[in-house]
Amino acid sequence: MVDTMGVEEQEGEDHREISVAEFFEKNKHLLGFENPQKSIITVVKEAVDNSLDACEQDDIIPEVQVLIDEVGDQKCRVELRDNAIGMDAETVPKVFGKLLYGSKFHKLQQSRGQQGIGISASAMYAQLTTGEPVTVYSKEEGKPCNRFVVRMDTEANEPEIIEQEEIDPEGDQFPGDRDYYFDHGTSIEMTVEAKYTRGHHSVKNYLKHTAIMNPYARIVLREPDGNKIEYPRVANELPEKPREIKPHLHGVELGVVMRMIENSDARTVSSFLQQEFTRVGRKSAVNICEEAEIDDGRRPNTLEKDEVENLLNAADRTNLQNPPTDCLSPAGEDLLLKGLEKELNPEFTTAVTRKPAVYGGNPFQVEVGLAWGGDIADEGSFEELRYANKVPLLYKKSSCVTTKAIESVDWSRYNISQSGSRPQGPLYISIHIASVWVPFTSEGKEAVANYDDIRKEMKLALQEGGRKLGRYIKRQERMEIQEEKKRKLTSYATEMGDAIAELAGSGNPGEYESEIKRMVQKDYDPEGLK
Amino acid sequence: MVDTMGVEEQEGEDHREISVAEFFEKNKHLLGFENPQKSIITVVKEAVDNSLDACEQDDIIPEVQVLIDEVGDQKCRVELRDNAIGMDAETVPKVFGKLLYGSKFHKLQQSRGQQGIGISASAMYAQLTTGEPVTVYSKEEGKPCNRFVVRMDTEANEPEIIEQEEIDPEGDQFPGDRDYYFDHGTSIEMTVEAKYTRGHHSVKNYLKHTAIMNPYARIVLREPDGNKIEYPRVANELPEKPREIKPHLHGVELGVVMRMIENSDARTVSSFLQQEFTRVGRKSAVNICEEAEIDDGRRPNTLEKDEVENLLNAADRTNLQNPPTDCLSPAGEDLLLKGLEKELNPEFTTAVTRKPAVYGGNPFQVEVGLAWGGDIADEGSFEELRYANKVPLLYKKSSCVTTKAIESVDWSRYNISQSGSRPQGPLYISIHIASVWVPFTSEGKEAVANYDDIRKEMKLALQEGGRKLGRYIKRQERMEIQEEKKRKLTSYATEMGDAIAELAGSGNPGEYESEIKRMVQKDYDPEGLK
Repeated sequence: MVDTMGVEEQEGEDHREISVAEFFEKNKHLLGFENPQKSIITVVKEAVDNSLDACEQDDIIPEVQVLIDEVGDQKCRVELRDNAIGMDAETVPKVFGKLLYGSKFHKLQQSRGQQGIGISASAMYAQLTTGEPVTVYSKEEGKPCNRFVVRMDTEANEPEIIEQEEIDPEGDQFPGDRDYYFDHGTSIEMTVEAKYTRGHHSVKNYLKHTAIMNPYARIVLREPDGNKIEYPRVANELPEKPREIKPHLHGVELGVVMRMIENSDARTVSSFLQQEFTRVGRKSAVNICEEAEIDDGRRPNTLEKDEVENLLNAADRTNLQNPPTDCLSPAGEDLLLKGLEKELNPEFTTAVTRKPAVYGGNPFQVEVGLAWGGDIADEGSFEELRYANKVPLLYKKSSCVTTKAIESVDWSRYNISQSGSRPQGPLYISIHIASVWVPFTSEGKEAVANYDDIRKEMKLALQEGGRKLGRYIKRQERMEIQEEKKRKLTSYATEMGDAIAELAGSGNPGEYESEIKRMVQKDYDPEGLK
Repeated sequence: MVDTMGVEEQEGEDHREISVAEFFEKNKHLLGFENPQKSIITVVKEAVDNSLDACEQDDIIPEVQVLIDEVGDQKCRVELRDNAIGMDAETVPKVFGKLLYGSKFHKLQQSRGQQGIGISASAMYAQLTTGEPVTVYSKEEGKPCNRFVVRMDTEANEPEIIEQEEIDPEGDQFPGDRDYYFDHGTSIEMTVEAKYTRGHHSVKNYLKHTAIMNPYARIVLREPDGNKIEYPRVANELPEKPREIKPHLHGVELGVVMRMIENSDARTVSSFLQQEFTRVGRKSAVNICEEAEIDDGRRPNTLEKDEVENLLNAADRTNLQNPPTDCLSPAGEDLLLKGLEKELNPEFTTAVTRKPAVYGGNPFQVEVGLAWGGDIADEGSFEELRYANKVPLLYKKSSCVTTKAIESVDWSRYNISQSGSRPQGPLYISIHIASVWVPFTSEGKEAVANYDDIRKEMKLALQEGGRKLGRYIKRQERMEIQEEKKRKLTSYATEMGDAIAELAGSGNPGEYESEIKRMVQKDYDPEGLK
C-alpha cells in the first residue's frame, strides 16, 4: 500500500529519509519563496519579526535597519541590523544553519515567530539561489563581537561553520554606521535571488504596515537606489510583555497528554493535572479524577490509555476557568488609532479591542481599526490591513479569515455601500489577531485559517466598529443635507427679503434678508445635531 | 535578531531542536487534518494514493477496499486493503512511524505521493487523537505475512515497534474476506477522530472522483451503516508507466548543482553535465563549457561557486532539447471521456490532452474534459473536477490554479453564459495536471499553486474544449429554433390549407395541408444543418 515498494524490490533500496531542509528546499514556495519579488519581502519579514520579538523580550526599544543593494540581475544583498541583546557563539550557527530550531515553538506565549523556520529558511534560500553563505555579527553587552560565516548542510539539516572569529567593535570590520551603534545587537548579511519592487507587495509597504502596528519601533529602510526612509517612533513605551502559560485541559489532544505523562515527574494524577495545566487547582483536580473514577493518588504513568481518555472527557464536563490572558499582548485601541492616524491621516477613526477568547484551547484576541475619509481616496473598494501577532500579512487575502469576516458583515446597516459582500468607500479596515498559536494556512505565515471561533470574534469587532463609523457617516450626511439647505435658503434670502417687503407693503428688504439669514443659520446649526 | 535570545540568557537554555513530527503535529491542519470531517477523507486519500501508486509501479491492476466503522462519538476505525506487492519487515515501521521517509521525493517521475508524509501523518493523527497505534499487515508474494503494531515517537520522529509477528495467511488472524484474497498486498487499520459525512466533501465523493480518473482500478467502499458501494473497473489496461528522469539544466538552482557536484563521482565537468542532467550530450556539454570559458576536462569539485554560476548561465544561453516526457502518464482523451460518461451520463462530452510543457525545469501536461447536458442538472453554476497526478482535489478550490484558469476564459464566445467570470449551465469541467513535481499550495496537497506556465496551458486546453462544446451548443440552439418553427408552421397547416383552398377557389384543403406539412418538413430538416 506504500511508496513504490516494487522499485525497492526490483531495483534495490530506494526508500530513504528526507531531511526537513531538503523538503523545504524543494517546497520553498510554502515558506514564502515563490518568486524573486516575494522572496525579498520574506527575507526582510523573518528578520524584522525576530528583531522585534527579541527586543521586546528584553525590554529594549527596537531599532531596526534594513539595507538593500542590487548586486546583479535579480540579485540583492540584504543587511539587517538590530539592537537586541545578541546571541552567544553556540547559538548563532544553529539559528541560521538549521531548520526547526528555536525557542518559541514549545512555548504558549504570543510572539511573532513561532515555528523555528523563518530566518534559517532565508539563509537556505540564499544558499540555494546564489550559492552564498550567510554572515552574522552578534554582540552581547560587555562581550566581544562574534563574526560567523555559516552554511547549511541541507541533506543533514545541520549548520557548517565556514569562518568564526572575534572582532573588535572599534575596528573597521565591525558593521554599521558609527552614528547608529549599539553595544548589543545582531547584523545579518545575505545575498539572495530577489527583485526589489514598489507597490502593495513590497518591502517598503511591509515595513510601513509594520510601523503602523508597532509604533514604538524605529525602522530605517535604505532602498537600492540609496533612498532612505525612516519610520519614526511615535510611542516610547513597549506594550506589556506577554507571559508564558501552560496548556488548558479543554482542547488538548489525548496523544499530547499521554506524552506529557511520560515526560512528567509528578507523583500523583492530581499533582500532574495541577502542575502541567493552567487553571487546575487542587479542588478541580480531585473533581476531575472523581468524575473519571480514577484514584487521584495514582502514579500518572500507571494510567492506561482509556483511563487518560476518561480523564479528558471528565475534564470536558468540568467547569474550568478560561486560560489566563496575560500570555497575550494586543496593541490596544490607543496604539491602533495612533498608527492609523499617523500613516493615513483620515477624517474619522475608531478602534475596538475585544476581550480575549479561546479556540481549541488557545487564547486569542481580536482588534479592529476603521479609518474613513480625509486623505484616504475612494478607490471603489476598501483597503485591508491584516495582522497576526503584530506582523503584517500581505499575501493570500482571499483565503484569510479576515476577509471572510469582513464579507460576513452587513455593511449597509452602517450606511456604507457594498459591492457584493464587500464594503465600498474611502475606508481602511485593519484587523489584528493576537494569539499564543496563530493557525496560519502555510509555513509562510501569510494567511490565517478560517476557524469559526476566530471569524466570529472578528465579525463582532467589525460590527462594533461599523456601528460607530455608521453613526459618524449618518451625521455627516445629515450635516451635508442641512448645509445644502442652508446654503440654498441663504442664497434666496435677498429675493425673499424683497418679496416679504413687498407683501408687507413696508419695511426694509435688507433687514428682512438679514433676518432670514439669521433664522436659517440658527435653525440649521449643525452643532445642534451633535 | 533572533528567537528570544534574552530568555536564553536570563532563564538558561531555551533554544532547542523541533522534530518534524512535533512540527506537523502542532500544524496538523497543514496536512489536511483540520477537522473530523476532513480528516477521514485525508486518511483514505493518503492510503488510496499509495495503493494506486504501488500497484501501477508493479503492473498490478489495482483492487482497493476501504472499510469504515463508527466506534464512538466522532471516532472511526478505518481499514484499507490493497493487492500491491507488499513490503518487507524492515520497511513497514519506518513507512508508518516516521515522517519524511519514502522513495518518491528524490525522484523525477510522476506519482501520486511525492513528499513521504502522507500515510505516516495519518498514523500520527490516529495516535494524537485516539492514542491508538496503527496495525499493518503486509505480505509479499510467496513470503509469510508480517503483522506490525507501530507507534511514532513524535519527539524523535522515529517508529516504535509495539508488536511484530509472522502470521499464517490461512489462519484466523489474517485480515480480509476470503472472497477478496490476494497473495500479496497490505492492510492498514487505524482508529482516528473522524466524522463520516456525505455530500461534496466526503469519502464517497473522493472515491467517485478517483474512479472517474482511474477507471482501471476496482474500488470498494463499505460505509459505517454497512452500505457497500463498488466503483467497478471499466478499463483493463494500466496506462503507460512513467519513467524516472534526471533534472534539466534549464530551471535547476545553483545551490542544487553545487550539491550535485559534491555528491558526483564524475571525473570531468563534461561527464558531470552528461551524467547528471537530461538532454545534455557530449556536444552540448562541450559547448556549455566553452561558452562559460571553463576547461571541460577539469574535475568538477575544483569549480568555484562563480564558475558554477557561469556554467549555469551558459547553459541558459545554450539551446537544449526540452526534457523527455515519458516521465509523465496522463490519462489520455479516451479515459477522460470514459470516466465522465460513466459517472455523469451527459448529452455531450469532449476531451483535450495537451502536449507536455515545462515549468521551472519540471515537465508537466494538462488535460481537460467537458461534459454537458443529459443527466447533468443546470444548477446555475458549473461543477469542477480537479485532479493532480490523477488524485482528486476536493478542497481550496478558490486558491487553485484550475479555478483561475477557468475564470480567465471568455466562455461567452462559446455560447455559454457567464455569471461574472464563471461559466453557467449543465456543465462539468474536469482539469488534470500531470507532473513530476506538482507545486501544491500546502503539504495537504489540496490545491495547485497559480504558476503562469501552468495556468496558460490550462487556459489553452479549456479554450480548445470550449470551442468544440460551443459548436455543439450552437447547433443545438439552431436545431431547437428550427424545430420550433416547424412545429408552429405544421400546426398552422390545417388553417393555411383552408385559406389556400378558399383563395384558389378550388381544390382540396386536406391536400394543401399535407403539401404544406411536406414543405415544412423538407425545408427545415435539421439534418441539413449538419
